[in-house]
Amino acid sequence: MDKHYADDSLALHTDLYQINMSEAYWADGMHERKAIFELFFRKLPFGNGYALFAGLERILDYLRNFKFTDSDLAYLQEELGYKQDFIDYLRTVRFTGDVYSVAEGELVFQNEALIRVEAPLVEAQLIETALLNIVNYQTLIATKASRIKQIVKDERVMEFGTRRAQEMDAAIWGSRAAYIGGLEATSNARAGKKFGIPVAGTHAHSMVQAYKNEYDAFHAYAKRHKNCVFLVDTYDTLKSGVPIAIQVAKELGDKINFQGIRLDSGDIAFLSKEARKMLDAAGFKDVEIVVSNDLDEYTILNLKAQGARVDAWGIGTKLITAYDQPALGAVYKLVAIENEKGELEDTIKISGNAEKVTTPGLKNVYRIIDKENGKSEGDYIAMHDEDPASQERLKMFHPVHTFVSKFVTNFEAVNIHRKVVEQGQIIYKNPSVQEMQSYAIQNMELLWEEYKRSLNPEEYPVDLSQKCWDNKMRNIQEVRDAIHEFTGE
Amino acid sequence: MDKHYADDSLALHTDLYQINMSEAYWADGMHERKAIFELFFRKLPFGNGYALFAGLERILDYLRNFKFTDSDLAYLQEELGYKQDFIDYLRTVRFTGDVYSVAEGELVFQNEALIRVEAPLVEAQLIETALLNIVNYQTLIATKASRIKQIVKDERVMEFGTRRAQEMDAAIWGSRAAYIGGLEATSNARAGKKFGIPVAGTHAHSMVQAYKNEYDAFHAYAKRHKNCVFLVDTYDTLKSGVPIAIQVAKELGDKINFQGIRLDSGDIAFLSKEARKMLDAAGFKDVEIVVSNDLDEYTILNLKAQGARVDAWGIGTKLITAYDQPALGAVYKLVAIENEKGELEDTIKISGNAEKVTTPGLKNVYRIIDKENGKSEGDYIAMHDEDPASQERLKMFHPVHTFVSKFVTNFEAVNIHRKVVEQGQIIYKNPSVQEMQSYAIQNMELLWEEYKRSLNPEEYPVDLSQKCWDNKMRNIQEVRDAIHEFTGE
Repeated sequence: MDKHYADDSLALHTDLYQINMSEAYWADGMHERKAIFELFFRKLPFGNGYALFAGLERILDYLRNFKFTDSDLAYLQEELGYKQDFIDYLRTVRFTGDVYSVAEGELVFQNEALIRVEAPLVEAQLIETALLNIVNYQTLIATKASRIKQIVKDERVMEFGTRRAQEMDAAIWGSRAAYIGGLEATSNARAGKKFGIPVAGTHAHSMVQAYKNEYDAFHAYAKRHKNCVFLVDTYDTLKSGVPIAIQVAKELGDKINFQGIRLDSGDIAFLSKEARKMLDAAGFKDVEIVVSNDLDEYTILNLKAQGARVDAWGIGTKLITAYDQPALGAVYKLVAIENEKGELEDTIKISGNAEKVTTPGLKNVYRIIDKENGKSEGDYIAMHDEDPASQERLKMFHPVHTFVSKFVTNFEAVNIHRKVVEQGQIIYKNPSVQEMQSYAIQNMELLWEEYKRSLNPEEYPVDLSQKCWDNKMRNIQEVRDAIHEFTGE
Repeated sequence: MDKHYADDSLALHTDLYQINMSEAYWADGMHERKAIFELFFRKLPFGNGYALFAGLERILDYLRNFKFTDSDLAYLQEELGYKQDFIDYLRTVRFTGDVYSVAEGELVFQNEALIRVEAPLVEAQLIETALLNIVNYQTLIATKASRIKQIVKDERVMEFGTRRAQEMDAAIWGSRAAYIGGLEATSNARAGKKFGIPVAGTHAHSMVQAYKNEYDAFHAYAKRHKNCVFLVDTYDTLKSGVPIAIQVAKELGDKINFQGIRLDSGDIAFLSKEARKMLDAAGFKDVEIVVSNDLDEYTILNLKAQGARVDAWGIGTKLITAYDQPALGAVYKLVAIENEKGELEDTIKISGNAEKVTTPGLKNVYRIIDKENGKSEGDYIAMHDEDPASQERLKMFHPVHTFVSKFVTNFEAVNIHRKVVEQGQIIYKNPSVQEMQSYAIQNMELLWEEYKRSLNPEEYPVDLSQKCWDNKMRNIQEVRDAIHEFTGE
């Protein structure tokens, strides 16, 4: 049974192991050591050449309210058996650290921190799961929406996916992420209310069925709605739906604003072209054709190639679930931690797979922008005490295939992060979603077209500074030495 | 900006067109006509031979609380421009209808109602989007979990997907659905608290990194935790992780219960076999090997075929997002509506695709169970005034390929639905999730093994009664006649 707690909190929205580790840290006196975690993904989704970050607003809200409630603590103690002393400690835990993040609508790439958390070890650990849960989904959907918008270009695109979304949060936060990524509207009224996103929608097949025929249904709709988009595929699009829409619009004349017809099934290329001819012939040249039916960037590209006559696209399932890749694999890794003397020490996670070895240490990420053409040359990860802006000539090289390198001059080095939380206080004011969308559109201007191609785009460089690379190699060697010491091999 | 409303409700969690249609119905005096809607999917997910229903508990909660709040109405009026008279009406709307549903954990199949709503037209329409949003996701995940459990069979399976879930609701409701589908535990503590699901988890790589080495990290963990599962792949599984886990366990002896080791990367088949040998040689024959790393039923089948030595499986991304098919396409269709005389009249939605034509009228779904062997012969959809139980010999035929038919005798006909809401009152008491899981397991016994095969299972019959089929054909003809009358063709 779903137990409803008046004090339900999201502090327990975490993997149990975070709580187990916290207990061990606390019992060992490690819990207040300052830890640096980076949240990043290793691979861009959908084979895309870039991603768009989203999720910060919900994260800030989560951090502001982070607190185990009475019912949370009672559950941990009574059901899971945690001891009183640890429960007493957990009761006092709040988020008191610093957070650096990119803005929502920012371009982000593989293997660079989207968010950096600098906080007492236990706090940084307890928030991991929720941060990933939020960023992984919202960033995925903002990126998918942007990809779709890149293909569609000039027509309007609307998010129609709520009924197929993975439960309710995905529906509304997905609507918001899709809007940030460049879509024009959502069908979800609650998302419209919460986030100030434009909402869109007219009527469904059930209305035509309820009136038994399109003629009565369209008339009924028009009685209360000046702006009319008629759904024309309940029975037979070209024999019944479109002709009746035209007939009703002619009968009502100026009483309505006949905005469009909507096609939701059948061959969209054929039907849209035929419907366009019928509308034009009837003098409705400005009446729009709105289509939906399991669309995504691939089908849209094909429909456009076939000359489909579409003025607005409604995208559901394939967008809201990111159907072709429904998860972004972002991770959250410890890169440095204070030792007993209060000095930061690097940490590393080794893997047999070169791409999976983490890059240790406190670092910054710079976007290197060519001052002449305003385009980005790539991103550049440097140790915290480096200042690439002060260099005349910057060597950028591939972090795995190090022989792939270039020199950059006459550049601007923009730190992509800003401090959004300071000692637990939120110091960042969220822009409106409209501002986030504008920011994303403006960011796209930084990219050469080659990075924006939907299929096989050029790989955008995310490079390490020489110092950062040397530091990583030293850390790997240290781990190897330690294993050698243990095994004697 | 995310506007927080103290009175945030889910009544607005709907597509805008539902509200537009509601306005037209209300203005036309149609809003209180009794309407019958069926919620069903057309195609089983993952190529599976069955699906397991989940989502009812959240739906009942949603219906119980259905009500537009002050802030909802203010938004509709002030931001979207709905007029005062309609807003005044919406303020009074509650759910007052009847709902028939299958139980959570019930076997369900293509083209049969999972839920039937019998309610005033506006109410039935307004709840459509939320019902689909809930059922589509929860049923998908319960089915995916059951599929995985069918392959795993005897070992434990745990849901570890929160960080990759599509936002927070998916994480917790997905955990719950996975549990109903047969999994043993979740890593999400909040899901454990809300639903009473067992939770599981030990420690992460970050703990080993925080202590710089496995030896200190395992000791630190063991100080506060009697039951120990050590994660052994932070640096080098076989050279460092496993030997150190064994060393620490030997040092601590009876002070801990050395339950297992966990592998989270690398070649699971090879590593698990090698780790098993090392554990056995050290006298730890009962210590379990827990694995995780992007697993699903396909990889598990392969790992088992290669003789991987695994005692428990942690499944994340591929389960919680239903990665290979992240949406179930359930729809909600009007099958009958009251006319002005108060009589129920059938409605139909036609499509060029035979499988997409709806089956009109008020109907019941019976599971036809062979009394001799207790196995199900298929599901049988009959008109509401038919009683298949009273027949000695039942003819069952394929609803599209009608020549595929069989006669059944000595059967029980079990109506799979029960009334869960009566005139807006919830009359159903939700079982515990443990009871739902047991119910699902018990249901699986009804199915021949051929329907449970994960690849290319036999198609389970969902057939129409002769009367139901004749009625459908008549309805199709009536629509054709009406179009003919309009077009003269």
